Amino acid sequence: MQHDHVLTAKQFSRADIETVLDRAAALDVRAREASSSEPGRNRSDDGARVGDRHAETLLGLLFFEPSTRTRMSFETAIKRLGGDVVDMGSVESSSVKKGETLADTVRVIEGYADALVLRHPSQGAAKMASEYVDVPVINAGDGAGHHPTQTLLDLYTIRERAGLDDLTIGIMGDLKYGRTVHSLAQALTRFDATQHFVSPESLALPPDVRYDLDEAGASVRSHTDLETILPELDMLYVTRIQRERFPDENEYRAIADAYGIGLETLERAKDDLSIMHPLPRVDEVDPAIDDTDHAAYFEQAHSGIPVRMALLDLLL
Amino acid sequence: MQHDHVLTAKQFSRADIETVLDRAAALDVRAREASSSEPGRNRSDDGARVGDRHAETLLGLLFFEPSTRTRMSFETAIKRLGGDVVDMGSVESSSVKKGETLADTVRVIEGYADALVLRHPSQGAAKMASEYVDVPVINAGDGAGHHPTQTLLDLYTIRERAGLDDLTIGIMGDLKYGRTVHSLAQALTRFDATQHFVSPESLALPPDVRYDLDEAGASVRSHTDLETILPELDMLYVTRIQRERFPDENEYRAIADAYGIGLETLERAKDDLSIMHPLPRVDEVDPAIDDTDHAAYFEQAHSGIPVRMALLDLLL
Amino acid sequence: MQHDHVLTAKQFSRADIETVLDRAAALDVRAREASSSEPGRNRSDDGARVGDRHAETLLGLLFFEPSTRTRMSFETAIKRLGGDVVDMGSVESSSVKKGETLADTVRVIEGYADALVLRHPSQGAAKMASEYVDVPVINAGDGAGHHPTQTLLDLYTIRERAGLDDLTIGIMGDLKYGRTVHSLAQALTRFDATQHFVSPESLALPPDVRYDLDEAGASVRSHTDLETILPELDMLYVTRIQRERFPDENEYRAIADAYGIGLETLERAKDDLSIMHPLPRVDEVDPAIDDTDHAAYFEQAHSGIPVRMALLDLLL
Repeated sequence: MQHDHVLTAKQFSRADIETVLDRAAALDVRAREASSSEPGRNRSDDGARVGDRHAETLLGLLFFEPSTRTRMSFETAIKRLGGDVVDMGSVESSSVKKGETLADTVRVIEGYADALVLRHPSQGAAKMASEYVDVPVINAGDGAGHHPTQTLLDLYTIRERAGLDDLTIGIMGDLKYGRTVHSLAQALTRFDATQHFVSPESLALPPDVRYDLDEAGASVRSHTDLETILPELDMLYVTRIQRERFPDENEYRAIADAYGIGLETLERAKDDLSIMHPLPRVDEVDPAIDDTDHAAYFEQAHSGIPVRMALLDLLL
Repeated sequence: MQHDHVLTAKQFSRADIETVLDRAAALDVRAREASSSEPGRNRSDDGARVGDRHAETLLGLLFFEPSTRTRMSFETAIKRLGGDVVDMGSVESSSVKKGETLADTVRVIEGYADALVLRHPSQGAAKMASEYVDVPVINAGDGAGHHPTQTLLDLYTIRERAGLDDLTIGIMGDLKYGRTVHSLAQALTRFDATQHFVSPESLALPPDVRYDLDEAGASVRSHTDLETILPELDMLYVTRIQRERFPDENEYRAIADAYGIGLETLERAKDDLSIMHPLPRVDEVDPAIDDTDHAAYFEQAHSGIPVRMALLDLLL
Repeated sequence: MQHDHVLTAKQFSRADIETVLDRAAALDVRAREASSSEPGRNRSDDGARVGDRHAETLLGLLFFEPSTRTRMSFETAIKRLGGDVVDMGSVESSSVKKGETLADTVRVIEGYADALVLRHPSQGAAKMASEYVDVPVINAGDGAGHHPTQTLLDLYTIRERAGLDDLTIGIMGDLKYGRTVHSLAQALTRFDATQHFVSPESLALPPDVRYDLDEAGASVRSHTDLETILPELDMLYVTRIQRERFPDENEYRAIADAYGIGLETLERAKDDLSIMHPLPRVDEVDPAIDDTDHAAYFEQAHSGIPVRMALLDLLL
């Protein structure tokens, strides 16, 4: 990695992405030992092997808004590498309450840690923080901005399931507000992927994101209905439609129903279509799908561990 | 242990219990080195010895309601074994708030950890969780249901103090709502113990628990007064009477006074009577007892460490 | 260290202080490798060296009120020594809420840990706790009482920057309520330091603190204005003036402005004057000073790590 700070998925070249994903695959014992069912199967021989190098590493966790899943995933990753965390905990109990600036907070905490993982409600917070400290800053989500490790784990799952080239992927749901979707769509332009966006008009991809995709020469198309395009898809990425975006409950329900999927939805899909979802889901993906081979979303969540291990291993 | 999941004390045979308690005793340096008073006396040579085997182990802590003591005890146990935890933290900041089901939450977090410790307000939660994941689930309390490691540590303390056979034990206080008491009473039926239940009528043992004890052929008797039975007891287990069970403050005070103990209560007791209490106590056990040899309750709390170490060591 | 418990800076002799600071300097790789800018520069060869001895050490963190910075600093220190923590977490979720006494809480938790770090809103809490447990208790702040590790890290920074003897130091701001300032002033009486106190009359040093300093034969003077004394100072310790002390917002602003410093304030100062501040700051120290060599406050915050490592290493 030439980059000390990890601020946005946009900073990664195709080669960067492949370096991280290759390293992640090497660390992903779960995938390799999926047939094993004894307790302790998560133990990683590779983890032990890289571990010594990171035994002294402390990762500083600064979550200025809660994101339990992301925090646990980073914590697990560094611990599986043999390192440890020092966690600021909730903002409610921190100096932030006394009016301290983000610049001051990160300059104090860089004295405790070898790298900082920052989650913040304000767009640009991670970039700003990176300008004040010498240790690497990893953006774990900055409001409507970026969440690059989410993009990397999405790419990892797509590559494991269908490959990143010659890919036909559908991305469905809230495409307007979904940071996850914007970053993934942009990252996919580094590969030979065709992207089909499926959403109601009111939640369509913002013009600036669409513009960026077109500029990058991406093969993209938009739809208001999954029906016509479903049979072509190798992957379908479903996102949560947030109730709070809709003033009217009935309108929300109608949209949520139209852009959710069940077993019957999949009848016209390829046998090896894989369904992704960033989780948590509410009603978008029927639990009846969980036990089918289509379900890739738990695997996707789990892949956060080897992907973040790989990134940390390359950075530190 | 033949059981991957630890859901209820009922699942343990007498042999299971003895296996855990024997292993715990071997790990309990505190007991062996009680005379030592240097700092660092908690360090365990045995801990170090088993440690290498668990150095890669991550225990997932999912506390859907707070239980500081139980959480710290599990965390200490796995760390003394050389492993580490990854903690979901408070539910306030988790995906549960976004409407995620318990089944989804545990399926995501099993990807991070080698075993899950689950505390949940709903009875049956641990069993349900165990049906969705492949890693061992340890029930750390599920509402009015079970809390098997509490029962094991209670048994450990009784065995250390008086032995589990030829035992005469009094169990006093809130016997109606006390999950701890129900599990302990049932576990004691595996041994040659005589159990005396002491409570006001309104807080007597529920009929179904009493029925189970009778079915198991246990030697049990009920009393509304400690006085008559006290001189026979080897152990006296006192529980907290919860103010919120009583609409009337005066009634609560009268009951609490009648079923609390002080130094004067113990005048008619055996010299080697040991007092247990699951803690925290409020007024049930007078602090004047703390400095006498009767007090076993801090030792009882501390025994959570070797007992949970033993259980984890046997499971993982 | 002859002292098992660390309750107040007053318990330290000059020799004690020098022992801790010498050990801290040996552990302070950051200072030694300040020119290095690679990631991972926080890794300590010394940390690794002392590490084996503390690999089994668990530090119990009991913060009865939040103090994120102090907690993280202790956690980082013990982890850099190779040990780990077990953290009670927020009081909101603990047995304290059920009415448990501090004496009971610490007696339970001493069974989990090799030493306890206690933060509590009540003066005298740490001393009281130390009377109930056998493991060392470290006071991490007890209300208006003491916070001895803060004093040690302040002394460390002063020694690194200007030396503790032949020192002329200014201490400015809220001298009435500032626990930090009282402890530092008293500790400096062990050395050959001249102390200049600068504050409005309403926030002057309390008579009892001043009395103690005079008794110790300290060289101290009080001022209401920084102007006259500034050119003589080697160090200037600035503290936060708390808005809530002033019923009138205008009066607060006037005082805060008069006792804050900016680049222009420093024109008449020595070239090598160092500015300290316990952080977080609000407006007392202009961020324009951050990039000058005068700024010692981030270095001061960072020195909490080697100083607490040293103290723990000497105690455990």
